[in-house]
Amino acid sequence: MSRLIRIGLDAMGGDHGPETIIEGAALAQKEANGDFQIVLVGHQDRVQEASERLKHKLRHRVKTVFPIHHAADSIGMEDSPSEAVKRKDSSLSLAMQLQKQGEIDAVVSAGNTGAVMASALFTMGRLEGIDRPALAIYLPTQNQRGVLILDVGANAYCKPTNLYEFGVMGSIYSATILNRENPSVGLLSIGEERSKGNPVTVDSHKLLSESSLNFIGNVEGNDVLKGKADVVVCDGFVGNVMIKLAESFGGFLAHLLRHQVRSNLLSKMGVFFLKYTFKKLKKTLDYAEYGGAPLLGVNGVSIICHGSSSPKAIKNGIRVAASMVRKKVNHKIQEMLSFHGVGNSVKAKTA
Amino acid sequence: MSRLIRIGLDAMGGDHGPETIIEGAALAQKEANGDFQIVLVGHQDRVQEASERLKHKLRHRVKTVFPIHHAADSIGMEDSPSEAVKRKDSSLSLAMQLQKQGEIDAVVSAGNTGAVMASALFTMGRLEGIDRPALAIYLPTQNQRGVLILDVGANAYCKPTNLYEFGVMGSIYSATILNRENPSVGLLSIGEERSKGNPVTVDSHKLLSESSLNFIGNVEGNDVLKGKADVVVCDGFVGNVMIKLAESFGGFLAHLLRHQVRSNLLSKMGVFFLKYTFKKLKKTLDYAEYGGAPLLGVNGVSIICHGSSSPKAIKNGIRVAASMVRKKVNHKIQEMLSFHGVGNSVKAKTA
Repeated sequence: MSRLIRIGLDAMGGDHGPETIIEGAALAQKEANGDFQIVLVGHQDRVQEASERLKHKLRHRVKTVFPIHHAADSIGMEDSPSEAVKRKDSSLSLAMQLQKQGEIDAVVSAGNTGAVMASALFTMGRLEGIDRPALAIYLPTQNQRGVLILDVGANAYCKPTNLYEFGVMGSIYSATILNRENPSVGLLSIGEERSKGNPVTVDSHKLLSESSLNFIGNVEGNDVLKGKADVVVCDGFVGNVMIKLAESFGGFLAHLLRHQVRSNLLSKMGVFFLKYTFKKLKKTLDYAEYGGAPLLGVNGVSIICHGSSSPKAIKNGIRVAASMVRKKVNHKIQEMLSFHGVGNSVKAKTA
Repeated sequence: MSRLIRIGLDAMGGDHGPETIIEGAALAQKEANGDFQIVLVGHQDRVQEASERLKHKLRHRVKTVFPIHHAADSIGMEDSPSEAVKRKDSSLSLAMQLQKQGEIDAVVSAGNTGAVMASALFTMGRLEGIDRPALAIYLPTQNQRGVLILDVGANAYCKPTNLYEFGVMGSIYSATILNRENPSVGLLSIGEERSKGNPVTVDSHKLLSESSLNFIGNVEGNDVLKGKADVVVCDGFVGNVMIKLAESFGGFLAHLLRHQVRSNLLSKMGVFFLKYTFKKLKKTLDYAEYGGAPLLGVNGVSIICHGSSSPKAIKNGIRVAASMVRKKVNHKIQEMLSFHGVGNSVKAKTA
C-alpha cells in the first residue's frame, strides 16, 4: 500500500458534538507528520460550522479543515444497534461503507457503542477464522505494563473457542500496538486452579493451555489491575461489568474524600495540595482517556471512543487506528490463526 | 428461644492465627451486653496458649477466655472444599455439626471460603424453598446507603430462579440487618433495558419484575458503587470478579499516588497530610472490614470473614451473626418465599 493511510472520523458521534471531534482530528493531524490523512464523515453544514468555530477558538494555530463526506443523518446515543444498520445515510453507516469500498482504511467513532459494533460487523463482516469479534480496552496497572481486556461488551455469552480467539487477537494487538514482547494471556476466572470457574472457563483453560499463546492460566478480579497478565480474556458480560466498575472508582473516590475530609483541617490542606494529582488520578482510571477501544475481529479497522471523549482521547483513537492499519494487525491475526488454528494448536506446540 | 444466643467461632480459621480471632471474640463480648455468648471451636492447647498471650497483650482489660470445643484437626487455606466435608474432626466441620445439633446458633469463620460454604451446605443443608445458597457482601456506596451484592462466589452459574431467590434473601437481609426500608433490588446486567444482557438476565428480569420485590430493573457495573440499588443480584462468577476488583482498588490507588507524587513537592506535602485519610479510605474499600459475608440460604447461620480479617472485622462478623439469629432472618426468608413463591409472584402482586 503506497498511498497515505486514510482515517475516517465519524464527526457526529460523541456527547460533546462535532467541535470536540474535529479538535481531536486537528491534534492528531498535527502529530501525524504526514503519516496519515483524516476524512470527516458527517453533516456538511454542521461540520463546517464546527470547524469555523474551532478555528477561532484555536486561533488558527492548527489546521481545522478536513475533507468532508456528507451524511444527512446521524445515529443518536439512544438509538438501537439495529437503527445503525437500517439507516444507511447516517454518518456512522457511511463511514463503514467508505471503508468497505476502500476509500478509507479505518473508522474512528465516539458514537453509540452498540451501533458502531453492529454497523462495523454488518458492513465489513468478520475476519476469516474469527467467529465473534471482541471489543478490547486498555487499562493502566500497578506494574506499569497495562492490561488489555477483551471482550468488554460485544458478546454477552461466549464459547471456549471465542475466548481462545480473543486470546489470539489480544496477543497480536498487545505485541503489535502496545509493544509487549511475548504478551502473557490470562483467563478471567474465580480461582487460580484450572478446575475453578464455570464450564466455559474450564474448557477455555484447556484450549488456551494447548495453544501456542503465552498462556499463564486463570487470573482473578484482583489480579487485573496488578497487571498479572498483559491480556485478560473474558466474556463481554463480565468484561463490561468490570470496566464500568473500574470507571466508577474515580467518582467514588472523590466522593469519599470530600466526605472524610470535611472535619479534618490537616486533610483539607492535603486535598488542596493534591488537587492536581487527583485530577490526573481520575483520568488514569477513566478508560475513556486511552484512545478508544478497538473492535478486533471485524474485516477492517474500527475504533470506538467513549461518548464523553476529550479531543485528546479522540486524537489517541485516531493514532491507534493508523497504527493498526500501518502495522497490519488484521493480517497478523489471520496468519496466527491459520498457523495455529484451534484444531492445530496442540500440533503446533509439540511440532 | 429464651436461652442466650450462642455463637460458635472457628478459632483456627484466618491468616493471622487464633490470637487475632480470639481478640475479635473479646471485642465482641465486650460490646455484647450479655446479648450472646461466644464458644470457640479449635485445638484446645493452641487456643488456650493464644488466649494466654492475648491476656497479657490486652493487659487483662477484657475477657479473653471462652468455652472451647476441642477439634484435633483444622482446614487450611489451600485445602479443597471437599476436604472440609471429609475431615469431620476439623474445627470448621465440628462447628457446623454443633450448630446442626442446636448446641450453637451460628458459626463465624475466617477460614477457607470454599471450605466453609461446602461444610455449611453439607452439614446443615439448604433452607426450604431455596435451590442455591448465596454468599452476600456489603460494600459502601457514594450515597451512604451501601449495597449488598449476592452472589459473590457460591455459584459460578445461576438460573433465573436462583437470581430471584437471591433477590428475596438479599431483600430480607437488607431490611432486617441493614435496616433499609423497602430495599430496592437491581439486576446486574450490561445495559439498562430489560432486553439487554444474556439469556439468564433477560429471563431473570421478567421473574423479578413480576415478583413483590422492590425491583428497579437492570443496574450496570458503574451503578454499583453509586448505590443505585440497595441489593444487587448476579451470578457468583461476575459477583466474585467485581468484589475482588473493588478490593484491589486500594492497593492500585496507593501505588499510583506513590508513582505520581514522586516528582512534585506540593503533592508530597499533600500525601503527608492525607496519610490518615488514605488509611481510612483503603479500609473503606476493603470488604474484609465489613463484618464478613453471610452465606444466605443454608438452614442455619454462617458468616464467612475474610482470611486477613482484623479483630475488628471478626467482632463485626460475630455481631452480624447474633443479629441474624435474634432477628430470625431465615424464618423471614421462608415466610416471604411461601407467601410470594416464584409461582405465586404474579398473583401476589395483583391480588
